[in-house]
Amino acid sequence: MARPAVRPFLQAPALGDLFRQDRLVRTAGAHSALGAAIAQEVGFDAIWASSFEISAARCLPDASLLTMTDYLQVTVQMLEACAVPIVADVDTGFGGTMNVAHMVREYEREGISAVCMEDKIFPKLNSFAAGAHELLPTMEFCRKLEVATELRQSDQFHIIARTEALIAGHGVDEALERCEQYVCAGADSVLVHSKSTTPEPIMRFLAHWGGRAPVIVVPTTYPSWNAEEAHAAGVSMIIYANQSLRATVSSMRSVLETILKEGTSVPVEEQIAPVSEIFRLQQLDQWLEVE
Amino acid sequence: MARPAVRPFLQAPALGDLFRQDRLVRTAGAHSALGAAIAQEVGFDAIWASSFEISAARCLPDASLLTMTDYLQVTVQMLEACAVPIVADVDTGFGGTMNVAHMVREYEREGISAVCMEDKIFPKLNSFAAGAHELLPTMEFCRKLEVATELRQSDQFHIIARTEALIAGHGVDEALERCEQYVCAGADSVLVHSKSTTPEPIMRFLAHWGGRAPVIVVPTTYPSWNAEEAHAAGVSMIIYANQSLRATVSSMRSVLETILKEGTSVPVEEQIAPVSEIFRLQQLDQWLEVE
Amino acid sequence: MARPAVRPFLQAPALGDLFRQDRLVRTAGAHSALGAAIAQEVGFDAIWASSFEISAARCLPDASLLTMTDYLQVTVQMLEACAVPIVADVDTGFGGTMNVAHMVREYEREGISAVCMEDKIFPKLNSFAAGAHELLPTMEFCRKLEVATELRQSDQFHIIARTEALIAGHGVDEALERCEQYVCAGADSVLVHSKSTTPEPIMRFLAHWGGRAPVIVVPTTYPSWNAEEAHAAGVSMIIYANQSLRATVSSMRSVLETILKEGTSVPVEEQIAPVSEIFRLQQLDQWLEVE
Amino acid sequence: MARPAVRPFLQAPALGDLFRQDRLVRTAGAHSALGAAIAQEVGFDAIWASSFEISAARCLPDASLLTMTDYLQVTVQMLEACAVPIVADVDTGFGGTMNVAHMVREYEREGISAVCMEDKIFPKLNSFAAGAHELLPTMEFCRKLEVATELRQSDQFHIIARTEALIAGHGVDEALERCEQYVCAGADSVLVHSKSTTPEPIMRFLAHWGGRAPVIVVPTTYPSWNAEEAHAAGVSMIIYANQSLRATVSSMRSVLETILKEGTSVPVEEQIAPVSEIFRLQQLDQWLEVE
Repeated sequence: MARPAVRPFLQAPALGDLFRQDRLVRTAGAHSALGAAIAQEVGFDAIWASSFEISAARCLPDASLLTMTDYLQVTVQMLEACAVPIVADVDTGFGGTMNVAHMVREYEREGISAVCMEDKIFPKLNSFAAGAHELLPTMEFCRKLEVATELRQSDQFHIIARTEALIAGHGVDEALERCEQYVCAGADSVLVHSKSTTPEPIMRFLAHWGGRAPVIVVPTTYPSWNAEEAHAAGVSMIIYANQSLRATVSSMRSVLETILKEGTSVPVEEQIAPVSEIFRLQQLDQWLEVE
Repeated sequence: MARPAVRPFLQAPALGDLFRQDRLVRTAGAHSALGAAIAQEVGFDAIWASSFEISAARCLPDASLLTMTDYLQVTVQMLEACAVPIVADVDTGFGGTMNVAHMVREYEREGISAVCMEDKIFPKLNSFAAGAHELLPTMEFCRKLEVATELRQSDQFHIIARTEALIAGHGVDEALERCEQYVCAGADSVLVHSKSTTPEPIMRFLAHWGGRAPVIVVPTTYPSWNAEEAHAAGVSMIIYANQSLRATVSSMRSVLETILKEGTSVPVEEQIAPVSEIFRLQQLDQWLEVE
Repeated sequence: MARPAVRPFLQAPALGDLFRQDRLVRTAGAHSALGAAIAQEVGFDAIWASSFEISAARCLPDASLLTMTDYLQVTVQMLEACAVPIVADVDTGFGGTMNVAHMVREYEREGISAVCMEDKIFPKLNSFAAGAHELLPTMEFCRKLEVATELRQSDQFHIIARTEALIAGHGVDEALERCEQYVCAGADSVLVHSKSTTPEPIMRFLAHWGGRAPVIVVPTTYPSWNAEEAHAAGVSMIIYANQSLRATVSSMRSVLETILKEGTSVPVEEQIAPVSEIFRLQQLDQWLEVE
Repeated sequence: MARPAVRPFLQAPALGDLFRQDRLVRTAGAHSALGAAIAQEVGFDAIWASSFEISAARCLPDASLLTMTDYLQVTVQMLEACAVPIVADVDTGFGGTMNVAHMVREYEREGISAVCMEDKIFPKLNSFAAGAHELLPTMEFCRKLEVATELRQSDQFHIIARTEALIAGHGVDEALERCEQYVCAGADSVLVHSKSTTPEPIMRFLAHWGGRAPVIVVPTTYPSWNAEEAHAAGVSMIIYANQSLRATVSSMRSVLETILKEGTSVPVEEQIAPVSEIFRLQQLDQWLEVE
């Protein structure tokens, strides 16, 4: 028998190795295995298993309603469809320090490349939602990071500390102070989140950061700062965190509206992928060779 | 305290009641709660929880690889986001007669409005995939239908018998013969699947059917037959089974390609839903009122 | 065809209706559908879907590590195997007020009869574990109860407020004060937990309670207080919360030790259920009739 | 901070390595992580993630009703609680050849040590249940084994071929003929199942087998054949496949009956594990050190 064309699952490169190549790691948000596979095909270097996207796919707010079980399940489905690193958005670590320990054991065992934990209080609220965003005291979040780094089996399991200091209105100095502590506590890299409409706060952060660890940004509200500029300013990873989800919402609505109004899918057939393209993404031919 | 704005889950009308209104039930395929919610907002009367869409969202072929557990989970997520009937695509019933009994108990308990079971042999292959599509002997499929109708608690739980006679190349007479038997065995309605590029085989079926039970069609390969014509010819439900998925594939790819090439999401911002629209679909404001 | 012997799932009576019959509701803890089915067969009136038992079955501490998703899944499996009410131990409601809202929607939709929510802070620790057991301020817990009662669809979905005031060392007056507030906020009944080795604190509670709502007790640490005495003192429900799990631990260990030591299962065959008894509990004969 | 006492998950030794040590591998059935952990503590060398036990824990027959998703979930929970190999009972491979491919990818990715696939037709029925047990033609089962061995990433992922030839009444010659073919197709070892009340058919098998591959037996119906005799006759692994489940059934029933009758748990307290023993199995102290 010829070797079946369906391949075993591929191992992603370690995220730390990508950072050491000194190029910008471009990352796309996803909410399904299919979205992750398309992002990889398009050429993204990594996948952001976004809490915002995954909860939106369930029509639930990004507010710690979905559980670690729910998020991990979808994240593993992405992992199975990709060979690039999956960066899991694990919110606050799903509770307190013991929850972080549980999370690290589970995510690493499943083969997830990286987890990104933020310094908000459980239950958290999406950073772009109106309302107070209370931060965990620095030392408490550092304990979470210490537990996470102590409990991992391999330092290839990458731990990102995300500060919401700017989101919570505390200014760049607080973000710098926190990120320094987080790196001391064991974080491999830091994500500095901002909802400013300009990159200015992030640029000030970078100017004072001194390259202590890779810096990750999510330019949802300041999209005009392009990837090259960000990289030149010292950014190691840029995450386009939710555009993929937002694309599906507008396209599903538009296509369904036309079909309903016209009573036929003919007018949309040209703009949507053919069935054969779905078969290709499902790797139907490779699976049929097994049969 | 004011009544929280988040509502309890809504009960969908029975599919049989829609059929009795003597109008065309327009149904859209979905692979997530979000897709189902959008289809409902657009105005569709029901949701098709498509095996093809759901398996594609996992990057796996529509070939009985995903399990009843997998499909039911996603189907229930759709149910929670909608107030229109969910029509579950249950393939062959997931195996033999006992599997059908298990399926009926589980799907009805979860509150799914309807299940659609097809007369292929487990494991099945997607109807549009090349290859032989072997049919279960009529009497064996009738036993499955009998078990399903006997085991349901309420006849509001609607059971659709889908024949693959045309897909398997057996002609309209075989489809008619089978569908008659299926209705005798207890099916509430029939889905006649076809991969012809014209509606002609379906029209011949309808001409001889005599309205024994509502007829459902899936015009993926003959989209030019529009809803009005189909209804006039005797169709009770039309399913646009996969266009929603195909829309997401092309839009995710296009948006991600532009972002990667341009190094910014600016060029796509106008064509994708804003973050506020995602918040609306997540019902964020209503949930915040709970808090 | 004769009616298949496998029955559709049965509906449990409402827990409130049991309370109105003015007899003691005797409840057994369980960690699996099988345990729940056996407890029902033995004659218990209700099943306690215990967080302690369910987390122990996973070899994880009862410390909010397992998620709502995990607990609900096992609880639904119990429901499918029983026709007596399932009382779900939902800890703190799995986080804050929004988590409570999410919990109520999910548990009620699944058909669970009752949820029991306690006034500790998330993440919680098992009440018998050493360590501080910090309580949520009364008003905050009342808000959780208000949200729960407002969001349920039917007042047949029974909401139990559990106070850990005695566990936390605050005395009977605090327990009374809290339980009064909880009933005002909408709780249908109260569970007063105690780790005293005598029933004395509970008896004092009952003496001052005045029958404002049914009272539930868990005499794990004061087992000598028997059911009749408890009922005479004013208890409406008694929960034997973990004996079933503890029985499985000792019996599995003992049987496996003998088998390993003797190199054969012969010495244990008389003390373990025969295979035919497992078939009976699986309802194999009824399922085979479907076939 | 001292190293947290909760350990990362441990890696089990490869089953093939155990076989090469030329001693009898003693294996206990389990239906939960807790049961697996106890079997390991007692001293068993491996855990049998039994379809019969796992389906019984759900009160459903062992008849391909539970899905691969269901079985894999419980099997992974066992893996997380143990450091001995988990041998997964995968029935027929959950359908056809493609299902086998899917199964191998999923089970190996999760870190399961071994899978045991049987030569019955999907949906299968438990071997001890009355009724016909139809076998798959030898060549078709060999194709499943070829696909399984081709698709695994590492030959440390052990593939057991189980023949039901004796169960189906075909005699020892057929069992020998099939097992030879199965080893040629890539099986690492063979399980010869029998429901004879004596070991005689198995002994005849062994006498003619010639040690082509390790042989595994399940002496449920012939328990008087002890481990030493079996090993001397050429058996490499002995599985006590369901005694653990049967122990829990009788002990739960007995303990619950006493509690209900006596109105107190006092009479059973001495025979059931104390709460402190449950804490130990949950590793509560180690987890509290994390906090």
